[in-house]
Amino acid sequence: MKQSLLFVPTLKDAPKDAEVKSHKLMARAGLIKQTAAGIYTYLPLGHRVMKKIETIVRDEHDKRECSELLMPAIQPRDLWEESGRWSEYGPELMRLKDRKDRDFCLGPTHEEVITHAVRDYINSYKKLPLALYQIQTKYRDELRPRFGLMRGREFVMKDLYTFHESDEDLNTWYEKMKVAYTDIFRRCGLETKIVSSDTGQIGGKEADEFMVMSEVGEDTISYCDQGSYAANKEFSGLSAGDKCPECEGTIKEAKGIEVGNIFKLGTKYSESMNAYFTDREGKQKPVLMGCYGIGISRTLMAAVEQHSSDNGIVWPSEITPFKVHILPLKTNDELTMEVADSIYKELSKTNEVLIDDRGERPGVKFKDADLIGIPYRIIIGKDVSEGKVEFLNRYTGEKNLVNIAEISGLI
Amino acid sequence: MKQSLLFVPTLKDAPKDAEVKSHKLMARAGLIKQTAAGIYTYLPLGHRVMKKIETIVRDEHDKRECSELLMPAIQPRDLWEESGRWSEYGPELMRLKDRKDRDFCLGPTHEEVITHAVRDYINSYKKLPLALYQIQTKYRDELRPRFGLMRGREFVMKDLYTFHESDEDLNTWYEKMKVAYTDIFRRCGLETKIVSSDTGQIGGKEADEFMVMSEVGEDTISYCDQGSYAANKEFSGLSAGDKCPECEGTIKEAKGIEVGNIFKLGTKYSESMNAYFTDREGKQKPVLMGCYGIGISRTLMAAVEQHSSDNGIVWPSEITPFKVHILPLKTNDELTMEVADSIYKELSKTNEVLIDDRGERPGVKFKDADLIGIPYRIIIGKDVSEGKVEFLNRYTGEKNLVNIAEISGLI
Repeated sequence: MKQSLLFVPTLKDAPKDAEVKSHKLMARAGLIKQTAAGIYTYLPLGHRVMKKIETIVRDEHDKRECSELLMPAIQPRDLWEESGRWSEYGPELMRLKDRKDRDFCLGPTHEEVITHAVRDYINSYKKLPLALYQIQTKYRDELRPRFGLMRGREFVMKDLYTFHESDEDLNTWYEKMKVAYTDIFRRCGLETKIVSSDTGQIGGKEADEFMVMSEVGEDTISYCDQGSYAANKEFSGLSAGDKCPECEGTIKEAKGIEVGNIFKLGTKYSESMNAYFTDREGKQKPVLMGCYGIGISRTLMAAVEQHSSDNGIVWPSEITPFKVHILPLKTNDELTMEVADSIYKELSKTNEVLIDDRGERPGVKFKDADLIGIPYRIIIGKDVSEGKVEFLNRYTGEKNLVNIAEISGLI
Repeated sequence: MKQSLLFVPTLKDAPKDAEVKSHKLMARAGLIKQTAAGIYTYLPLGHRVMKKIETIVRDEHDKRECSELLMPAIQPRDLWEESGRWSEYGPELMRLKDRKDRDFCLGPTHEEVITHAVRDYINSYKKLPLALYQIQTKYRDELRPRFGLMRGREFVMKDLYTFHESDEDLNTWYEKMKVAYTDIFRRCGLETKIVSSDTGQIGGKEADEFMVMSEVGEDTISYCDQGSYAANKEFSGLSAGDKCPECEGTIKEAKGIEVGNIFKLGTKYSESMNAYFTDREGKQKPVLMGCYGIGISRTLMAAVEQHSSDNGIVWPSEITPFKVHILPLKTNDELTMEVADSIYKELSKTNEVLIDDRGERPGVKFKDADLIGIPYRIIIGKDVSEGKVEFLNRYTGEKNLVNIAEISGLI
């Protein structure tokens, strides 16, 4: 892709309301642009990373026999009356009326819609289990939208809903999705800790949150510095320095960004919304449900927070918008552009490559490239006359002058 | 994919409000489910076809140097005041207030948001042209939502916006996108006719619509039965049977479903919203704009309308949710399931395959398979004991008993 056509409006200064590093960088690197308070446009580079995250999420769900669908953002009041949440939910629920004065809301979550969609179908244990997910735009009218994508009012989420005939089956799926979530965040370059949480406005019996450690996180969590992720939820009552038998190391405290949450809903929605099935003994029972969310846009922000310095981002390999960034320094030099073009064509056969074809000064190109954060950089400078270009690996910081013919082997 | 896990709630009878064949079939085949009037959930099979259409749309846009981004559905009133459309737009515009009583709308189109996003950046002819598109959920509060996805209130669209320094460049892109659109619809299995139209609430100077011929279409168009697509717009004043010099054949009339539209916006938005650039002579000028829409969900519906009988769909090859459908008739027979499983594994290496693993009677399986519309079907019946299965090509209707080993070669 040519940078001149991609639309990457980098900025010298971050917007005034950007308080945290990731928000500043995302605005400065041309990943997002604010359209209204807490409402953002994902510019091409930011959108590419979102799509990469979505691909990982789809892959880990599909391989675990979940099916994807797409529910509407607008939801009718009558479904929320069935569940009882129309009156329970506070001002975070965005409500509107249609031209015939009927009430709707913009969904912050989809338990009502999915229960309505499946309840006629799952009339027998033979139709269970069922696991349905979507990647979709959600709404929450935050009192104080802030931190860019971290606390926005319109955001992209993956939400999965599972349906079961027994507690055992729900538990099996719950544990399976815990593993899926750990895999998803690891592939996004994020190490997460699992902490148990209350079930809040979603309702249900048990819930866990997936936290990315970060000084800008909004939750404080206690964890054991030696042990598996799952062990962390045992330490929620403890403070830094405390000792306890299950922790072989030391209890530490950290701030966390919540990037995912999972809930055992039980029969809250199936009972109120009449989703019953005939069990193996011929009895009518409310179906058991689980729900599992991932903040796609928030994961993007958490990745920037963790994989950056104040000067720019270095994208984790699976979610980088491009793998290689080619910087021809003199775009009016024939040899430079010839070499740049041939490297671009060669590498593009098997990689995603961005070429900075703009007629900007080298200083501008370097500064933008640092901001944008593509991991492998090829700089075509004065040594091109001797058949050499610079190769920079931003993961290691290593920079070498290499023969043009060697480039393919380095990527 | 196993059919038991996919969630395909086929129905014996179509919903009462379904008036046209495609709406009836989409509900009966378990592609969509109504959540509220004009508001639908895309069930897994329908969603897969949507994703296929989106992939084609992305491919044809990306190869023409367009960049993808994602804009918000919620749009602030102030941007619509800038363009003057807040007061112009009728009750089709869904409006809402946030918790602080500020006005927003749910976007039926994104001229305001994209102009806001690019206007600071495109300050020079050097930054032009620029072509930005999104695939996104849109809203229009139709007075009478009907015909399923054809006239819905929440729908998926692709919208592209282009920015130019001159009329010549706008015209070049306009013609290029006409070709892109023809290619996109052809790959979706649809033959389209281009008819000129008025510019309506979008505004601008010139507009064309892409029409799929269908008896359930809402527009009447006149066309020459011998000639290129582009020639059709010459005949908009004529009726069936009329003669004219440019038409070597006969003028005919048909109903059309509008699946795409393209507009030369000119400077309507750039002037009102202050998107100016410095031209090659150093003068300040409003940027020229084009916009280009495709109804993704409507294209899905048009494809069903064109490629179906009352008994079911036969999907065009590039948008079919699966390529092969395997029907083991006796799921409790060991040999049947062994053969089904081995064919499934073999074909899945290079194809998308659905296997009907449900313990349903053969009659139910056949009826559902006809409805669902997967083009190649492999039936594992009584001849499996002699190493043979039935192979049905639904495009030709040809049905043959073949040796199991030959199957791979037939797909």
